[in-house]
Amino acid sequence: MRFFDTTLRDGEQTPGVSLTPAEKLEIASHLSDIGVDVIEAGSAAASVGEREAIRLISDAGLAAECCTYVRALAQDIDLAADYGADSVHLVVPVSDLHIEKKLRKTREQVCEMAWNTVEYAKSRGLIVELSGEDASRADQQFLRELFREGIERGADRLCFCDTVGLLTPERAAGVIPPLCMAPLSIHCHDDLGFALATTVAALRAGATCAHTTVNGLGERAGNTAFEELVMSLEVLYGRRTGIETGKLYQLSTVVSRLTGVPLATNKPIVGEMAFTHESGIHAHGIMRDATTYESIKPEDVGRKRRIVLGKHSGSAAVETALHEMGYHPDPHQLAEIVGRIKQLGDAGKRITDADMMTIADAVFEIEYTPAIELRQFTIVSGSNAMPTASVTLLVQGEEITGAATGNGPVDAAIRALQRSVAAVGTVRLEQYHVDAIVGGTDALVDVTVKLSKDGKTVTSRGARTDIITASVEAVIAGMNRLLREEHENRSEDTD
Amino acid sequence: MRFFDTTLRDGEQTPGVSLTPAEKLEIASHLSDIGVDVIEAGSAAASVGEREAIRLISDAGLAAECCTYVRALAQDIDLAADYGADSVHLVVPVSDLHIEKKLRKTREQVCEMAWNTVEYAKSRGLIVELSGEDASRADQQFLRELFREGIERGADRLCFCDTVGLLTPERAAGVIPPLCMAPLSIHCHDDLGFALATTVAALRAGATCAHTTVNGLGERAGNTAFEELVMSLEVLYGRRTGIETGKLYQLSTVVSRLTGVPLATNKPIVGEMAFTHESGIHAHGIMRDATTYESIKPEDVGRKRRIVLGKHSGSAAVETALHEMGYHPDPHQLAEIVGRIKQLGDAGKRITDADMMTIADAVFEIEYTPAIELRQFTIVSGSNAMPTASVTLLVQGEEITGAATGNGPVDAAIRALQRSVAAVGTVRLEQYHVDAIVGGTDALVDVTVKLSKDGKTVTSRGARTDIITASVEAVIAGMNRLLREEHENRSEDTD
Repeated sequence: MRFFDTTLRDGEQTPGVSLTPAEKLEIASHLSDIGVDVIEAGSAAASVGEREAIRLISDAGLAAECCTYVRALAQDIDLAADYGADSVHLVVPVSDLHIEKKLRKTREQVCEMAWNTVEYAKSRGLIVELSGEDASRADQQFLRELFREGIERGADRLCFCDTVGLLTPERAAGVIPPLCMAPLSIHCHDDLGFALATTVAALRAGATCAHTTVNGLGERAGNTAFEELVMSLEVLYGRRTGIETGKLYQLSTVVSRLTGVPLATNKPIVGEMAFTHESGIHAHGIMRDATTYESIKPEDVGRKRRIVLGKHSGSAAVETALHEMGYHPDPHQLAEIVGRIKQLGDAGKRITDADMMTIADAVFEIEYTPAIELRQFTIVSGSNAMPTASVTLLVQGEEITGAATGNGPVDAAIRALQRSVAAVGTVRLEQYHVDAIVGGTDALVDVTVKLSKDGKTVTSRGARTDIITASVEAVIAGMNRLLREEHENRSEDTD
Repeated sequence: MRFFDTTLRDGEQTPGVSLTPAEKLEIASHLSDIGVDVIEAGSAAASVGEREAIRLISDAGLAAECCTYVRALAQDIDLAADYGADSVHLVVPVSDLHIEKKLRKTREQVCEMAWNTVEYAKSRGLIVELSGEDASRADQQFLRELFREGIERGADRLCFCDTVGLLTPERAAGVIPPLCMAPLSIHCHDDLGFALATTVAALRAGATCAHTTVNGLGERAGNTAFEELVMSLEVLYGRRTGIETGKLYQLSTVVSRLTGVPLATNKPIVGEMAFTHESGIHAHGIMRDATTYESIKPEDVGRKRRIVLGKHSGSAAVETALHEMGYHPDPHQLAEIVGRIKQLGDAGKRITDADMMTIADAVFEIEYTPAIELRQFTIVSGSNAMPTASVTLLVQGEEITGAATGNGPVDAAIRALQRSVAAVGTVRLEQYHVDAIVGGTDALVDVTVKLSKDGKTVTSRGARTDIITASVEAVIAGMNRLLREEHENRSEDTD
């Protein structure tokens, strides 16, 4: 079985996504490296940048074949050949709907164009994959004729495009076998959520290559997701894919970063939550034996397991987290802490490390005097003003005022905070995350930060309608937890 | 066929998601309204808030049955009954892995607990759905025995839980029929991307009810997505579901808003891009006949079609957009505009209305004097300072300075801008959107705004490392376009 990755063409057709040639090359290198056989680098006819990308990728000496999308036009073939592509994905509409409504041609005209273009492409030394667009709605007898003569004229491979996601696994089992006159690819779209299952069904029915996109990018609802196909073939169908699965997560994050398309948190395999456990029963099971609630080991796809706390958390998960933070509750204290976490959850809150420690302190009746208290912060910014922030903190009783500039007011404020606590330690900002702000300027802005000091990390958050106040709040909450860590040891409190 | 929606229990188990009882009621009302038969409102044992939610939903007089998740424990049954649930989803582990590793019990002990709890639940007047957890890894003979005796003891319905997403459509076709001794539900998880296809296969094999969650929420990679199941049954399998599909998008957005879990842009049916077209060939086809690139009419799920421009855009889509904006290019001008749009796309840029107009003006050689020029803006904010902004604009040659306060500096700045242009028109901020900020405080902040004036709308964007400057830039770009609209008519320029 071969993997044909169309991330750089179909994937980039995701509305709003554009990649520079250098970004395309970066993705192509990762694709080749992980074991993808063919990379559809772009459509040479689409733009100058596309052509440059094809040139860059074909010149890069990757193991994978460099393919380009072409229409049944000699000019497209010339561009493909001139810019160094190894092969062409030659797409011709094959349903009467597409032939008549979109192209305003006849079946005969489409066949002539397709066959002539195959011949021309072969004369230019290209590998040809002849692809039927909207094949799922085509007269299958006509499609077979088109393919048969296409092979006669020199096509090396064929492709069945389920252009609008209408093929089902059951239909694939019927339509694919008669088309396997040459190596056949299956190219599915996910409009109705069936791209993956149908791709697998087609492979089982005789197709030898699957078209996919990383993260399932693509027009509308996207194409078959590469990472889902690889892992479902490996785990559910016992087929070795030859893909280095341990690099899947890295590939996925590179593509997400470069395209700017965030992953759904619950995306299979690569979503933020795919290996995260919250509910009591699940987390409890996971701690006893991970296979109870995991079908894949996170390490197999380059990830780690994570247990988070919330209102569904059971005692076992909370206790483990408390131990890690240095608290050793007795059963009564534990029950009380679990109860308060659930309360926070019932109120609709996400629970960070800082929240957890605040609750534990209260239950342990630890007098919690925060090491840092915010006295004031002020920011000034503008078109003619360097973003500047001042903060006044009470740090372990001593009033310290610090100021800093930054590339924006949030950056300035956080630098001023870091500078003000420098006397007691170097706190690094490891991660700064803001959930997408949707709706209006009065929407709640949810800031989560991950801070570290001397190898210890802590997460904390702030939520305000004002992004700067939310950011300051989050950083101070986290700093307090980090500074406190070293001045007290909560295990003593239970003695 | 029945729809059993577990959004409020499985869905809320999405790590990091918490709903208040009032929010749960809001979602439950939408679920009942759209035609869902059973709503799994929560787990009464989990927290006080969960119990309150169950009470609220069972008291609301909804058409849908109010169900709650319970373990095989009398205390859970009591809570379900006391808080007014109609039915219980009684979950017992049935794989040896879960029985031995998680529960540390024997098969016999689990059976006794399950059967006794069924009897007890019936004695408390509850409808009982007896559910086998991790059924896909269970000894199917054992599962049948457990179910058979469960029915004897009074269970009304059964459920097959594919707890870690290991069931395939092929296996479902084999394991489901022997279990259909009573109405059987299928409950799938999407760890390997097969939840939807497997659910459909199980329904085709005799299951009578599907467990789903709106937007496919749930632990890890989530559960079968309600909206995908409904539409694939209707469109691909010709089954009438009885669900009011025209309300699907609204339901999805309500759930996304209340849970705070954003939808993947390429999520089937409900993702932002599911009915958006960019590439030249696709947009061209869509304009001639929408069915060429759509398997569902967007209106059927309560949505609208959208064509966006980018480097894959062909002339036809660009021309249509230009006409809407009042430009009437000749073929030469059109080719030039298309070329420049592609250039912008090659550079990795998203193309807004404002970008498009700027390009068109340049090509038409229209002297574009922006109605508004920014002279300066200043913002001050802080813990003791009301967020305040001043802006100085040159509005049609006249210098105007305005100031405003807001709930944060961004809000203040936008209000000051609106106030400053008030003399020439009322510009409303219809949408303010910031992509999630990931990485650090030096990440590029991408702000897109939608502004309206007298019924006309325009999108524009700003991208800076500073959220305030990006917001100001986006709003001014949009305002200029809106104000200009009425002072000139580009159709004259082509005379």
